[in-house]
This record gives sequence, C-alpha cells and structure tokens, in this order.
Amino acid sequence: MHEFTLIEKYFSPLAAEAGLGLKDDAAFFTPPPGCSLVMTQDAMTAGIHFFPDDPADLIARKLLRVNLSDLAAKGAKPIGYLMSLLLPNDTEDTWVADFARGLAEDQHEFGIKLFGGDTSCIQGPLTLSLTAIGGVPAEKMIRRSGAKPGDAVYVTGTLGDAALGLRIRRGELPANEFLENRYLLPQPRSLPNVPVSACLDISDGFAQDAEHLADASGVRLVIEYDRLPVSDAARAMLSQIPNSEAVILAGGDDYELLFTASPHEVKGEYARIGHVETGTGVSILDASGQSIALKQKGWRHF
Amino acid sequence: MHEFTLIEKYFSPLAAEAGLGLKDDAAFFTPPPGCSLVMTQDAMTAGIHFFPDDPADLIARKLLRVNLSDLAAKGAKPIGYLMSLLLPNDTEDTWVADFARGLAEDQHEFGIKLFGGDTSCIQGPLTLSLTAIGGVPAEKMIRRSGAKPGDAVYVTGTLGDAALGLRIRRGELPANEFLENRYLLPQPRSLPNVPVSACLDISDGFAQDAEHLADASGVRLVIEYDRLPVSDAARAMLSQIPNSEAVILAGGDDYELLFTASPHEVKGEYARIGHVETGTGVSILDASGQSIALKQKGWRHF
Repeated sequence: MHEFTLIEKYFSPLAAEAGLGLKDDAAFFTPPPGCSLVMTQDAMTAGIHFFPDDPADLIARKLLRVNLSDLAAKGAKPIGYLMSLLLPNDTEDTWVADFARGLAEDQHEFGIKLFGGDTSCIQGPLTLSLTAIGGVPAEKMIRRSGAKPGDAVYVTGTLGDAALGLRIRRGELPANEFLENRYLLPQPRSLPNVPVSACLDISDGFAQDAEHLADASGVRLVIEYDRLPVSDAARAMLSQIPNSEAVILAGGDDYELLFTASPHEVKGEYARIGHVETGTGVSILDASGQSIALKQKGWRHF
Repeated sequence: MHEFTLIEKYFSPLAAEAGLGLKDDAAFFTPPPGCSLVMTQDAMTAGIHFFPDDPADLIARKLLRVNLSDLAAKGAKPIGYLMSLLLPNDTEDTWVADFARGLAEDQHEFGIKLFGGDTSCIQGPLTLSLTAIGGVPAEKMIRRSGAKPGDAVYVTGTLGDAALGLRIRRGELPANEFLENRYLLPQPRSLPNVPVSACLDISDGFAQDAEHLADASGVRLVIEYDRLPVSDAARAMLSQIPNSEAVILAGGDDYELLFTASPHEVKGEYARIGHVETGTGVSILDASGQSIALKQKGWRHF
C-alpha cells in the first residue's frame, strides 16, 4: 500500500475539522477567544523509547500520552496533534492498521483529533514524532518556575513502576502485568483544581526532574523519601533487588506530575511528599533525616 | 556534551518568548486577535531526504524551509516552530553547532523563532521532524480545493532544478553549483497579493501535485508544457540526458507553488502555465497539443 492510500485509509478517519481531511499538507485552526495555546513535541524511536515488537496500538498510545502528559503539566486541555511517521520499508499494513486503532482509542479517551503531519520511510528503526496542542486560559498556565518557599510538594501517583516494567520487558525481572502496563501505557494525569505554583512531569526520573523544578523556581525542595508513593507490585519487586532507591528516584518513564501548591489548598488523592524552602537544589531525606545520595539522578538520552 | 547542556548551549539562544527558554517542555503562545493558525509537520531522515554528509547548516535550513513552503501555500506568515532532533550516538558537537547556526540564519531571514521540541538519540540515521506554525486572517487562508473553471494556472519558479541537483549530488551528472543549491536549499515562495483560489507546493513532483489540486477542487487542469519555466542551467543539463520531460514533470523536491487565480488579477513574475476547466485530472500538452504520458507522476516515499 503506498503513502497516499495509507493516509487516506488509516489516518483521514482520525482527522479533526482543522486537519482539512489531511488533504492540504497543513492544519487550519482558530483558537477559541480567551484561549492560549500550549504546544509540545516529543519523538520516540524503536530501540530507545520502545521495543520494536511492542504492540503497535500501544506504541501509538504511548506516543500520544507522553505529549499529553506535558500538556497536563501546564494545566492545558488537549485539543489536537500533528504527527510524523517514519516507517521502515518492511512495515506491514496490519502494523499501520493497529497503530491507527491505538490512536483512535486514545483520541476518544482524551477528546482530541489529528490535525496533520506526514508519513515517510526511514533506512533505520521505526521513528515517530508528535506535536500536541492544548488550550489554557492565559492566567491558568503553570510553569516550572513558580514554586515558593512555604509551598508543599506533591506527586500524582506511584514512582518506579515503569522502570521496573522496562526491566521485566528486558527479561531481567519476573513478569508482572501491572508493572509492564505502567511501562507500556503511561496515564496522563490531571492537576487538582486549585492554584498550582509549579509543575512538570517526572518522565526523566524523579530526582532529576525535581532538580529542574527547583532550579527553574530558584528554591530548594526537601523531599521525604518515605512519603513517596510506591505501588504494592513495585514494593514486592523492589524487595528482591538491590539499589531499590535508585529505581524509585531515578528510574524514569513515570508520567506522574510533580507539583507545588499551598499546603492548605490541595485535597484528595495527591501524595504530599515534601516542602519548598529558600535555597537551591533538592534534598531527599530518609526516615532518619539523612540525605540520600544518588549516583545518577535520572535519564539522559546521551 | 549531554542532552541538557546541548539544549542550553545551542538551542536556548534560538528560542522565542513563547518557548519559555526551552525550560518547560512546552511552548505557550497566544495568537494575535483575528489571526488563525496554520500548522504543518514534516520529517526528514538521512539517506532518504538528504545525504548524511550534507552540510549541517543546510540540512537545518532545508528542514525549516520545506515546512515554511507548506505555510506559504496556505497564504500564512510564519511565526515559530517546534522540532524533534534524533541524533546518532557518534554525532559531533561541531555538527550540532553548525546545525544551530543554520537555524539561526533562517530564523533571521524568515522572522521566526524556536518554540520548543526535544532532543534524543537514535539507533539509526539522523532524523528530524519540524512543526511550523503560521498565522493568517481566516478569510485569506488558501486551500487546494478552491480552483474554478476559468481560472488560470501559475507556478512561482523553475521546475526540475532540484531533481537534477540530486542526480549531480549522486555523481550521475556533471557538477553545477546552481542546480546543487536548488536541491540543497529550497527557497520558500510567496503568493501574489491577489485572491488565489487554490494552491500547493509541488515538492512531490509537478504532475502528481497538480493532480492533487485538480482532485481536491473537482476540476481539470490543462497545462502547456512549453510554458513551464525551466532554468538555463537545467535546460543545458537536460539537453544531455534522455527523458527530460520526466525530470521536469515528476522530479520532485521543487519547492515552488502551483496556484490558480483569475487570469485578470495576477501580475509580475509568476509564470502562467495553463487553465482550469470542468472535468477531472490533469492534461499536460506538448507544442502540437498532444497529451504527454508519464510513467511516474511524482515521488512517493513508499
């Protein structure tokens, strides 16, 4: 099946009105009045961000979700996306059908549609890049740089699951469906409906991303290690391996949101894990109040 | 040099205010009132869209320009862009410096800045994807689908240069700087300041793209082959090779705009090459009025 047939068969049905039926090499979009735009672009390539034999529908959904996670961290509501698809020459038609099915599923789940993009071949691994567009009232946009001394620090969910899922996927640890799913299919989170002073997702590893937030805000974060939420499945798996703190603090691929807010505002399911004070950097304290030292604080791509 | 240092050193200086210093994994942008957005995303990968040893600054500028060409075809003025950079592990620091220098040069030339994106590694060829954002008053947006019987057909510049430049670059034809440059560094065009009924760029090959316009508009295009503009350099080169019509009509990588408009409106440097009538498809007529048949009408990536 050639390029244009493939676009018409699998991708045109996913297109938003703004996508002009994918017939114009461009999208046309007028944001609603009072709505500012948040835009983010993240790429994924086989062998680095996913395994070449991961299910195509889950690759599609992860690609969307890692970008939706960045929108969520800004307080933005997703609207649409553009996508570049670089396919190896031996890509099967059924792979593309499964990939498009995954997109359709998440379009429905997150209320978004395809604006455009392009499809081409590559003399190498399957490679994808997605640009997500979200809307937010200008005054509600959240940056990394707004944390203030006196704020509390929160996280939206459990840490370390995806890093363990990756090691399971590599055959280094025994199977566990929950952890593998946490690696394969991240869940974009949402923030509480209260003023949030700073936020980012911790996809590059908790300790490293916490430092990014502290640096951008010009403050010091003090984190209590024992307050970090860990799933039962991760806890059981971690009891069998050395260096479990590194998995939780620097594992990466956790698409949870780290955020700061007044401690009097946030209610509900968000784990309060520390506080903001004057100073620089991040201290992660164990139960006895000692700083935990890490060899590596997170994930770098090179 | 690692990921974050590289972003800070080479890419932060290119960032727009909307790019938030490239520190927020997202851009924040409020379009001016009355301005609709046009968005397009195109990827390029070494070995398919360019040669791995092409100069890094020209790769950067071509990446930008192929996207700016799509904006120009919609009548939109470029505003900014996001970009995914997937670098092989052996990428030199100097390569990235040259690449960023190319971006800076074209940012200046086209009045745009970097909104965001991401940088990662790839177990394969250098691969890039760029999303360009442009603005246009809603009523001035141009689609492929607006051509009407009675319109004239125009093109903004010469055809076949880039296809010849590619063959020179491959060593199949003798050197010619003009033609090689036309391949390496496309020039995004602009439309005349009159009502244009339909437009697209002919980067996939003139004959194929002309068909796309005819199909989208539900009309027939009649093109006079002898009116197609050909550069002196291309004419000289074409006299030495067989099948020169295929190079002009289906060569690809010409970032010229094909557009339709009332024949009474368009003045100046635009070549009038045919007319629109009722019917379907595209006829390309030779000097004797016979249709030229083509084995292949353009470029497909698979």
